[in-house]
Amino acid sequence: MNISDIMRHLWSPVCVVTSAWQGKINGQIAVTIGSASIVPDKPRLLIQIYKNNYSHKLIYSSGVFAANFLNQDQVSLIPTFGFETGKETNKFQNIAYEEGVTGCPVLLDSWGFIEAKIVNSMDGGDMTCFLGEVISGEIVGKQGPLLWPDARRVLPEHLQNIWESKRCEQTNISMDTMGCIDAHEWNDRKVIE
Amino acid sequence: MNISDIMRHLWSPVCVVTSAWQGKINGQIAVTIGSASIVPDKPRLLIQIYKNNYSHKLIYSSGVFAANFLNQDQVSLIPTFGFETGKETNKFQNIAYEEGVTGCPVLLDSWGFIEAKIVNSMDGGDMTCFLGEVISGEIVGKQGPLLWPDARRVLPEHLQNIWESKRCEQTNISMDTMGCIDAHEWNDRKVIE
Repeated sequence: MNISDIMRHLWSPVCVVTSAWQGKINGQIAVTIGSASIVPDKPRLLIQIYKNNYSHKLIYSSGVFAANFLNQDQVSLIPTFGFETGKETNKFQNIAYEEGVTGCPVLLDSWGFIEAKIVNSMDGGDMTCFLGEVISGEIVGKQGPLLWPDARRVLPEHLQNIWESKRCEQTNISMDTMGCIDAHEWNDRKVIE
Repeated sequence: MNISDIMRHLWSPVCVVTSAWQGKINGQIAVTIGSASIVPDKPRLLIQIYKNNYSHKLIYSSGVFAANFLNQDQVSLIPTFGFETGKETNKFQNIAYEEGVTGCPVLLDSWGFIEAKIVNSMDGGDMTCFLGEVISGEIVGKQGPLLWPDARRVLPEHLQNIWESKRCEQTNISMDTMGCIDAHEWNDRKVIE
């Protein structure tokens, strides 16, 4: 079973997901964003956020987020937003941004951004999957979006090692929690006749 | 606002999603599949299925599905599985398949397949988003997975026109229904302190 080789084709471009709640802001790296609408005038996104990330609290409580897709030359933002927790650090110290219409930070330099208002959520045990209505967005950069396999190729070895150890940490948490799903709607469903 | 140009980077490879329920089988085209687990040994998928598709009834009722990712040279399967409804047609008439461990049809010729058991779902108004635990899967083909922009480039014009008219039909249904979301969990949420 070589399922990992299939799964790696099913991640999104690399994104800094930003959030704002009660005067606090944060940003985290995600590769878990999907299109969720066929109607061009009413775009929607799916996004998965791990529950033990500081961003989860801000996004869940505020009901909004912004997805800032990185340009192909912005690999250096992966450690900035992906290696520390916003509980302890202000990740925006050296980052140019403005407040978007949702109140979430919008990076001035990116490939493009989307701001969304959440309309539903689903428990995944270790993560929450949010469905968001897009309310603002724009392509900013001239390159294409950064894909994770490309980022991986150019990320220096010592940063890859830090990434790997972060991934192991999250994997251990996920193994403990992903089975604990609150799934009322699903368990109570009726067969469709 | 050029949001469509961002959104088109957020669809998955082209997939025939198959289903089985009470002796009926079906398959439909989807580009709405995402990875939903960081744990290599416990892979999970997110998939969105439009409620007015015949497959929705089979997947919702059975709680299982199979995602068959097309090879780059299998564009001809898009009309087979994407242009008619399984309510009226047996789409598998000229297709080689076997029954997977979920009971869903697994195409013998594809880039690769994944079978999944659903563990939670979320209402999206016009669609349901399912979270599935992967229970089987394999890479079958030697090429890479077919991406929708590439399929679009090689699909003959008369088939593109049919696709476009199907898309318009679904868009009209979605515009009427995507606002009608049953979102108890989300609306009843408590702010996380």
